[in-house]
Amino acid sequence: MANINPRPVKIMDTTLRDAHQSLIATRMTTEQILPIVSKMDKVGFHALEVWGGATFDACLRFLKEDPWERLRKIKDQAPNTPLQMLFRGQNILGYRHYADDVVEYFVQKSVANGINIIRIFDALNDMRNLQTAVKAANKEKAHAQVAISYTISDVHTIDYYVGLAKEIEEMGANSICIKDMAGLLVPYRAAELVSALKEAVPTLPIQLHTHYTSGVAAMTYMKAIEAGCDIIDTAMSPLAMGTSQPATEVLVKTFEGTPYDTGINSEALSEITEYFRPIRQEALASGLMSTKVLEVDINTLRYQVPGGMLSNLVSQLKEQNAEDKYYEVLKEIPRVRADFGYLPLVTPTSQIVGTQAVLNVLAGERYKMVSKESKGIVRGEYGQTPVPISDEIVKKIIGDEKRITCRPADLLEPELDKLEKEMAMYKQQDEDVLSYALFPQVATDFFKYREAQQTKVDMQVADTKNAAYPV
Amino acid sequence: MANINPRPVKIMDTTLRDAHQSLIATRMTTEQILPIVSKMDKVGFHALEVWGGATFDACLRFLKEDPWERLRKIKDQAPNTPLQMLFRGQNILGYRHYADDVVEYFVQKSVANGINIIRIFDALNDMRNLQTAVKAANKEKAHAQVAISYTISDVHTIDYYVGLAKEIEEMGANSICIKDMAGLLVPYRAAELVSALKEAVPTLPIQLHTHYTSGVAAMTYMKAIEAGCDIIDTAMSPLAMGTSQPATEVLVKTFEGTPYDTGINSEALSEITEYFRPIRQEALASGLMSTKVLEVDINTLRYQVPGGMLSNLVSQLKEQNAEDKYYEVLKEIPRVRADFGYLPLVTPTSQIVGTQAVLNVLAGERYKMVSKESKGIVRGEYGQTPVPISDEIVKKIIGDEKRITCRPADLLEPELDKLEKEMAMYKQQDEDVLSYALFPQVATDFFKYREAQQTKVDMQVADTKNAAYPV
Ligand SMILES: [Co+2]
Ligand SMILES: [Co+2]
Repeated sequence: MANINPRPVKIMDTTLRDAHQSLIATRMTTEQILPIVSKMDKVGFHALEVWGGATFDACLRFLKEDPWERLRKIKDQAPNTPLQMLFRGQNILGYRHYADDVVEYFVQKSVANGINIIRIFDALNDMRNLQTAVKAANKEKAHAQVAISYTISDVHTIDYYVGLAKEIEEMGANSICIKDMAGLLVPYRAAELVSALKEAVPTLPIQLHTHYTSGVAAMTYMKAIEAGCDIIDTAMSPLAMGTSQPATEVLVKTFEGTPYDTGINSEALSEITEYFRPIRQEALASGLMSTKVLEVDINTLRYQVPGGMLSNLVSQLKEQNAEDKYYEVLKEIPRVRADFGYLPLVTPTSQIVGTQAVLNVLAGERYKMVSKESKGIVRGEYGQTPVPISDEIVKKIIGDEKRITCRPADLLEPELDKLEKEMAMYKQQDEDVLSYALFPQVATDFFKYREAQQTKVDMQVADTKNAAYPV
Repeated sequence: MANINPRPVKIMDTTLRDAHQSLIATRMTTEQILPIVSKMDKVGFHALEVWGGATFDACLRFLKEDPWERLRKIKDQAPNTPLQMLFRGQNILGYRHYADDVVEYFVQKSVANGINIIRIFDALNDMRNLQTAVKAANKEKAHAQVAISYTISDVHTIDYYVGLAKEIEEMGANSICIKDMAGLLVPYRAAELVSALKEAVPTLPIQLHTHYTSGVAAMTYMKAIEAGCDIIDTAMSPLAMGTSQPATEVLVKTFEGTPYDTGINSEALSEITEYFRPIRQEALASGLMSTKVLEVDINTLRYQVPGGMLSNLVSQLKEQNAEDKYYEVLKEIPRVRADFGYLPLVTPTSQIVGTQAVLNVLAGERYKMVSKESKGIVRGEYGQTPVPISDEIVKKIIGDEKRITCRPADLLEPELDKLEKEMAMYKQQDEDVLSYALFPQVATDFFKYREAQQTKVDMQVADTKNAAYPV
């Protein structure tokens, strides 16, 4: 081994974002996070993923926490390691397309509050949906990483991904991530893909993100690294594997003494492992972590669809007393996908394709019943599909309705001013308008809760100190 | 990939032996096993590991089953796939050295009842402890596989293992297994080791056996296979990973379409997966399977000792109110190991070394207190240590006592006749004497139970059919 030139692998630790999002419904609190951050900051990670994805929504909705405050507190404890967030293109962290002024302001405030690396992706890989965020990140001098949603279909060839990589380079991204959210990327395929991308865009670092769902993840990292992958995403072992990432400690040890040695000291990790172990144990004991998420999902390997999609199907069919149609629906899925321009199967497209497949089978005639979301896809509301949808399908689904061919956000008026007005009465910091923009109802509830807490605290202060209300 | 010559990997499935031994305390019953065996027989596995190890003891002691009957029933359902057992050299499946006549008779009866491949190993890698079993297997025309107990120490170099492999070849073994019971073998080391063994003994197939305990197992298989490993041991996913083997479905899928393609049809596996899934779920629900065994054990990676060994230490220290001595004991372990000729740390040597390290630390003086088992090791009762123990240590531990330098079993008189006499009153089949030889008390209890059951059944027959006792 000693003869080969060293090519150290960089490690991005996801424990504080994707790992708990994947295993314990994003329920890790800031209080649980903070005591260990300064130790994680000293390890020498490439970055810590600590924000974005579902954490923003979970903070406001379930934990009654201000996500911006979480970010600032983490930054305080981690001055040395770049902080990373996951950003869903024009959806930001929400569930619709937002106007550019919201996207730009969100990026600006994320960076101002501590984010260094923004990983930006789009469910359809419509690169137009990433432009605004990438440009904004460039402007804020953050690292703009564009993530390709990895999927398997007849059109998702190596050449297709190489084409995307070149677009990403042109767009001004600083690195590329292959984002395999379902664990579909098998090891030798990963080697092929990474080699091709490194050749196509040799100056951009390539990062690989996968989940252990189907059981291949660690092997996939290994083959990717041997093929030239620069950075891998891992999680501390108590929150690793299953539907989460491979374990940080394991990958660090695996490459120790090889040309890929991460340079991370295993001993520095052990205290962090011990910190997270009781969090795992409590989550298992309370049922917050189900043992289901720790199991190998062979359906992912068999049907090349995300694990969660099939359990959704089963529930849908059960509700209709049509469980016997399961295998028919399974066969219908790739057909719907082909009809819909070979969508990647990720949130929300996996639900849209799955539901339409169920409707096609149950109605006994394809597209006799069509969901609102299916119409949205065909209308172009989500952006461009990987290949164009045939005229025949368009006709069948939306008839002669007008289709959107531009970038969907081009149709949106600036909306920040209006949002500011709507929520002015709750505003305590500039960032509050962004929380409100993404989740109007949930943010409003949080703002009210926050005020009530403050009043309560103030009341206590008032009671105990000088029997007067502070202003 | 298509340009490389195909070199299909063979898969040995451990679900019915090691997997349930590792995850659910060897408690799978014959009733649970039988309904799925004929399906497993049709998959095209290299072999099914179904017997030996702890299953024999568990059948008699906990399940009140006759292990021989289990073997015959499995054979009935699996006429096409070789059946494999794990055989602990001169210990057979028990906890002491047995005379050669017992070893020979056990091999003969194992083969007669359905075993095709006997994997034979010794905790100390003293090849003399394997001779009798290997010769007996040769005589019975079974496949004799010798397993090397893999461990890490200053003397366990690649050259050391190459030396063992050559001894194994000379001994007349049909294949070699690298048996990494603790999950210590990291991926790139596995590649080195397998390459060296393939070069040293090119005619013998090399099989790799590891456990997922430390989280590297699947990667270790991958690097071993790329380096020339012929056969890997895996378990069906519901009983895989954690302290068990990597998942069969996952490895099959990983090599699909590569030069290492196993040729196994993934679809043929899915029904088997579904069969074992409820067994996993019930075991988790009842607590028979602890979520502890599913966790990555980073101590294995950190201290290069088997996971279970450290939890034993903690208990021992707790009992003595000396938990603060933990790190002192951890440092003492490699010193005791060196003193004792660099024993591999497996059952029973891991317990012996661990306990002696505790005694050395608690007594405040090394070898002031010495366990009976430590004396046994130094006396040579277990066989030869990897390197000789120094005169100084010998003197300190056993003074001028006589040491055994021959093969321990050479000191044992034939014992079958005596055993036959002792248990004659219980005998219902030839094999019963072997059950009695290995576990005299447990087998006697089982024989009594068996008789009681038979009498009860007879009583019922008598009652319901013709009011007379059958003879
Ligand atoms: Co993810
Ligand atoms: Co084993």
